[in-house]
Amino acid sequence: MRFADRLAGLVEARGSQIVLGLDPDPAQLWPEAVAQAPGDGSPARRAAAAVRAHCAALIDAAGPACVAVKPQLACFERLGADGWAALAATVEYARGAGLLVLADGKRGDISVSAAAYAQALVGSTPTPFGEAQGLGADAFTANPLLGVDALQPLVDGARAAGAGVFVLVRTSNPGAADVEDLELADGGPVWERLARIVAALGEPAAAGGLTDVGAVVGATEPRHLARMRELMPRTPFLLPGIGAQGGRVEDLAPAWAAGRAGGLISASRSITQAHESAHRSPSAAARAEAERLRASAWSLS
Amino acid sequence: MRFADRLAGLVEARGSQIVLGLDPDPAQLWPEAVAQAPGDGSPARRAAAAVRAHCAALIDAAGPACVAVKPQLACFERLGADGWAALAATVEYARGAGLLVLADGKRGDISVSAAAYAQALVGSTPTPFGEAQGLGADAFTANPLLGVDALQPLVDGARAAGAGVFVLVRTSNPGAADVEDLELADGGPVWERLARIVAALGEPAAAGGLTDVGAVVGATEPRHLARMRELMPRTPFLLPGIGAQGGRVEDLAPAWAAGRAGGLISASRSITQAHESAHRSPSAAARAEAERLRASAWSLS
Repeated sequence: MRFADRLAGLVEARGSQIVLGLDPDPAQLWPEAVAQAPGDGSPARRAAAAVRAHCAALIDAAGPACVAVKPQLACFERLGADGWAALAATVEYARGAGLLVLADGKRGDISVSAAAYAQALVGSTPTPFGEAQGLGADAFTANPLLGVDALQPLVDGARAAGAGVFVLVRTSNPGAADVEDLELADGGPVWERLARIVAALGEPAAAGGLTDVGAVVGATEPRHLARMRELMPRTPFLLPGIGAQGGRVEDLAPAWAAGRAGGLISASRSITQAHESAHRSPSAAARAEAERLRASAWSLS
Repeated sequence: MRFADRLAGLVEARGSQIVLGLDPDPAQLWPEAVAQAPGDGSPARRAAAAVRAHCAALIDAAGPACVAVKPQLACFERLGADGWAALAATVEYARGAGLLVLADGKRGDISVSAAAYAQALVGSTPTPFGEAQGLGADAFTANPLLGVDALQPLVDGARAAGAGVFVLVRTSNPGAADVEDLELADGGPVWERLARIVAALGEPAAAGGLTDVGAVVGATEPRHLARMRELMPRTPFLLPGIGAQGGRVEDLAPAWAAGRAGGLISASRSITQAHESAHRSPSAAARAEAERLRASAWSLS
């Protein structure tokens, strides 16, 4: 089944538009996860085991209120091969819990390199020894700076696998002003051009349905959302920036003009570290915060 | 020692500005490498062993004519944890051969995620079990779409490790026209703005020396090179696009206005697949092609 159909179906079935960000910092793992690491091995191997346990505990706690997880690839890559193995195990665990997996690596490269990223994240790679399976994600994030011919192999690879791509259009950080917000000589900012590229690349799953190429749209500048929806009427939006970065759920309504799966709210630290302000166990605090976000978004959409 | 000093010293010592691209495709490895894979194991594990042998053979053959290798991370990531282990082994092998390592992942993300990429590629990560060492590259490529606050953690992480960053300014693919070449309302294309950001981020290693923040500048549009050098007078340029993509060494002279290490020529397929047109063994053809490129660039710089 195509990604956009799976996404729309799962949003309805789970009653949730929340994407659980998995950004494990080995120095800030839940204590129960650190305790599960083996007693010997290299620091990377032990930390990777703890990261894996941390992500599983987080999925157990907050997953029921979510529709997807979004592992931040950088956080796993910094533990090398052990970290990549922990990533693969986490992807499998999330899928076992009925969640979609959005691999957040913001990849972008030309021709065969872009095709290799699609193989790595959602496809597989032909080898003389048989097909090597990739990560098995349902979708991944991509960076559009290199233009359409660099995005196309990502989209083609995703489409062949029934997966999706979320392309950066306007990110949630203040520095987005440096390049993404620059005004173009023929009118509008760079991000409007990116939005048009995204709209043109996507194919709808069905009449009136969402497209398989999504957009990453920071929740920190909600004043742009109505214009984004105008430029990308059938595009699913992945909305980071709620919580620590200052974005508010109640400002995101225009995203859902494309339907309930049209706006996915990504939250990481606000869930993982909810216990720091809540005086509850990490898992209880994470569950409560994810459920609070879920109910808040669902009631607005 | 700072990256720019190491780079300049090594370019002089080896008499080379050639960067050997390592983009291993498991379906197109040198036959001698495929023969070295173990007889059992998963396709990914066997292919990763063959990839590792292929890269070592390529480094043995062409490395002496080069100053650095540039592993394309996508090509390793598609083999999962086994691929990442092959990448780490390849980095170690290249360093043992006296070559610099430029990790080509074109990474870019915000705040803590960007810092995690720097930890992964050139730094290390604190864990409850001790410091987890990263890949140990000498430099890595980065994508500037997300702006200065997203580049800064990459630059800071690299600088702390004595490493460098090569930021995309104008890539070698035709699609670069879609975003990088867009004209801005206040004059000049997007890539000129990126060039200014790169110039401002870099710190010179020494008076008159190169900076530690480099630029990726496609060799396919050499008409821009003089302007690039004007905007980034002390920036090392990494120049992909020679050979298969149509770029020519003899058009790159402006890069070396900043000194012999000011222009590094990246070549992948033209070296790895030189035997397809040369009727020689893969290693002999690769050695000859790398030496031809080396001599050609050196005589112009």
